[in-house]
Amino acid sequence: MATSRASAFVDKDRLWRRHAAMAAFGAIPGNGVNRAALSAEDIEARRTFVAWGAERGYAAFTDAIGNLFLRRPGRDPAAAPVLTGSHLDSQPRGGRFDGTYGVLAGLEALEALDDAGIATERPIEVVSWTNEEGSRFQPGTMGSVAFIGLRSPADFADVRDAAGVPFTAELARALAALPQATPRPFGWPVHAFVEAHIEQGPVLYDRGETIGAVDSIQGARWFQVELRGETSHAGTTPLAARRDAVQAAVRCIAGLNDLMHDPADVLRFTVGRVDVEPNVPNSVASRAAFTIDLRHPEATVLAARGERIAEVCRAAAGACAVAVSETLSMPPCRFDAGIVDRVEHHAQALGLPVRRMPSGAFHDAGYMAGFCPTAMIFIPCERGISHNEAENATPDDLAAGARVLAEVLVDLAG
Amino acid sequence: MATSRASAFVDKDRLWRRHAAMAAFGAIPGNGVNRAALSAEDIEARRTFVAWGAERGYAAFTDAIGNLFLRRPGRDPAAAPVLTGSHLDSQPRGGRFDGTYGVLAGLEALEALDDAGIATERPIEVVSWTNEEGSRFQPGTMGSVAFIGLRSPADFADVRDAAGVPFTAELARALAALPQATPRPFGWPVHAFVEAHIEQGPVLYDRGETIGAVDSIQGARWFQVELRGETSHAGTTPLAARRDAVQAAVRCIAGLNDLMHDPADVLRFTVGRVDVEPNVPNSVASRAAFTIDLRHPEATVLAARGERIAEVCRAAAGACAVAVSETLSMPPCRFDAGIVDRVEHHAQALGLPVRRMPSGAFHDAGYMAGFCPTAMIFIPCERGISHNEAENATPDDLAAGARVLAEVLVDLAG
Repeated sequence: MATSRASAFVDKDRLWRRHAAMAAFGAIPGNGVNRAALSAEDIEARRTFVAWGAERGYAAFTDAIGNLFLRRPGRDPAAAPVLTGSHLDSQPRGGRFDGTYGVLAGLEALEALDDAGIATERPIEVVSWTNEEGSRFQPGTMGSVAFIGLRSPADFADVRDAAGVPFTAELARALAALPQATPRPFGWPVHAFVEAHIEQGPVLYDRGETIGAVDSIQGARWFQVELRGETSHAGTTPLAARRDAVQAAVRCIAGLNDLMHDPADVLRFTVGRVDVEPNVPNSVASRAAFTIDLRHPEATVLAARGERIAEVCRAAAGACAVAVSETLSMPPCRFDAGIVDRVEHHAQALGLPVRRMPSGAFHDAGYMAGFCPTAMIFIPCERGISHNEAENATPDDLAAGARVLAEVLVDLAG
Repeated sequence: MATSRASAFVDKDRLWRRHAAMAAFGAIPGNGVNRAALSAEDIEARRTFVAWGAERGYAAFTDAIGNLFLRRPGRDPAAAPVLTGSHLDSQPRGGRFDGTYGVLAGLEALEALDDAGIATERPIEVVSWTNEEGSRFQPGTMGSVAFIGLRSPADFADVRDAAGVPFTAELARALAALPQATPRPFGWPVHAFVEAHIEQGPVLYDRGETIGAVDSIQGARWFQVELRGETSHAGTTPLAARRDAVQAAVRCIAGLNDLMHDPADVLRFTVGRVDVEPNVPNSVASRAAFTIDLRHPEATVLAARGERIAEVCRAAAGACAVAVSETLSMPPCRFDAGIVDRVEHHAQALGLPVRRMPSGAFHDAGYMAGFCPTAMIFIPCERGISHNEAENATPDDLAAGARVLAEVLVDLAG
């Protein structure tokens, strides 16, 4: 595990310029990005990613869920490739680095290998997974779960966004926009997967450290809770006679706050989305639906709290009907110790302060860990803020992460 | 107050057919209607109303808020007219009778006078007030409050619907669609106003009575509560560090439930609309806004509970900023006893079971009562259900209300 010359050819300015260029697709006030999965903005980002790869002669591939791969050949074309990357879609009020950094750092690493004149035994590929965020189309991480075979695209056939636009139609549009990407099946052998990402938490930033050698991800479970009552006139219907879905939702959330209470403040419980019908001031609501995002490092805690959600909601629903469905389940995962060691080693060899740490956010790497040896590289983001226009990272830290990534890829690709 | 021949010429079938024709504009499944104020559907309804009047030679008039008037001349063209009518806009999941009945019953009464060969001293006009519901554009009852001078159209210059469409642009489109309606100022003298309406409550239906001689309306106050926090990552942000607008809204609503508690179940408290941003599962909400619809027959109760809303919300908002604004205030009103007596008299003279009663819902008549002698005529609706696709009324009851209305109008117009 000597350090190669690859890291010396990482170009900080090029990497920064590409972040700025990508940020134009879906730019929102405050330096933010709104690049919903498979939107026109996402398609522009995907075309740009493929065009940048084409300048280096990297062939583009795709699959039936729209994952995009750029391939730098190895000496052994039959060898299972080393894979790196992340996602190009964003939150509705997201930043310029979440996901995008992992894709651009992967491309930068490949270009650094080119410029250093390094040939590897195995091919190296950079992936942009489809719809990691899950904010436009639920669930998230569609691309990686389809790739590893946990779900099939047919499972998402009925998914629509909030405006009623079908996922399948938007996927077809995105695929048609990149005819130069060669179709491939899912689940081909991957030698190893390494995902670079901003931390999205405050640990590295607060401690002034540059590299996180990520050894695990806490588990996550998503639920959808739907209350159905009856709409009626706000002026004439006595409160005792109502089946008010908003009031039922409020009681459910209050009950869930009790269920999810954690004095140690390790458990993460979020109701991020609420949808009400007919949603007008003077009609009692007939329907109220909300999402639950529950996370914890311990599978036993996720199981114990998660299995009580339906019971708590039923007890709180009063005269309304309640339906609880689980829309995503990602168990806590531990990454491959060998790759985590390499991340730590190369960071130290490059003189970068490094910490072994867990991830609070989930990532496509959480699913890939069950499919092939996997790890992640974190870099700091300002005050730990993410999923927010104010998300920020420095050009130096972005380049430092790409340097470590380049060295780890050379190591893994031989 | 002898009963004239007018009521005998009310045509039950014509009145029913016109309800069916109007229900086509914005028809939704389950026999319902979604005819948002100033939408394309509302404009179609307005054109149809004017066209039906034109068949009888009734001139059409409008004003700067888009109220529509059809005029049946009197012997004295300078006399202040008697006015009847209601509104053609609906709730998003509304029925075929709320508002529409009052407009069509007014038109039916005028046609009955024509067919009976009755000439009146005063002109009689039928009005369709603009945006009574307030479900697309807030506040409701824009047309009547502008007519009486309580608000000016300039007060609504910044109003937009949930999709961001400006009220002013939609108003201009609606006015342009009816060039044959002659512009008029607001606030011209009105001799009396009588509004026919379905009860929207269960009293007449449950008792098998046909006519409500409405003597009062409970008061209503609308508020908008807005919580502003900070969006952040659902997986990484400790709960103690969050400024979660959804959780703040839940605490506010729970606190307001306590404030509004009424063991007698006379007070009406409704949170009908909730809007969350960015409204995705894995981001803490930065903004949550909700509406309050508060009603009570006693002005003192409305004042006492209403003035504590901001204090309760501030106490519940935690780390979020809170803003409370009042968007509508309609004091409890008592109608003109002389007109209520005439409604009761003519119902009895026609052999219709009648009850003096208050209105739980508010209506444009609540504002008109402060401007000219005013009353309302209620007819039963099935199980008291309104603001719901299942809203229903019988052809016999619709015609009965129109017969009473025709007699009252003849009485008032001389």
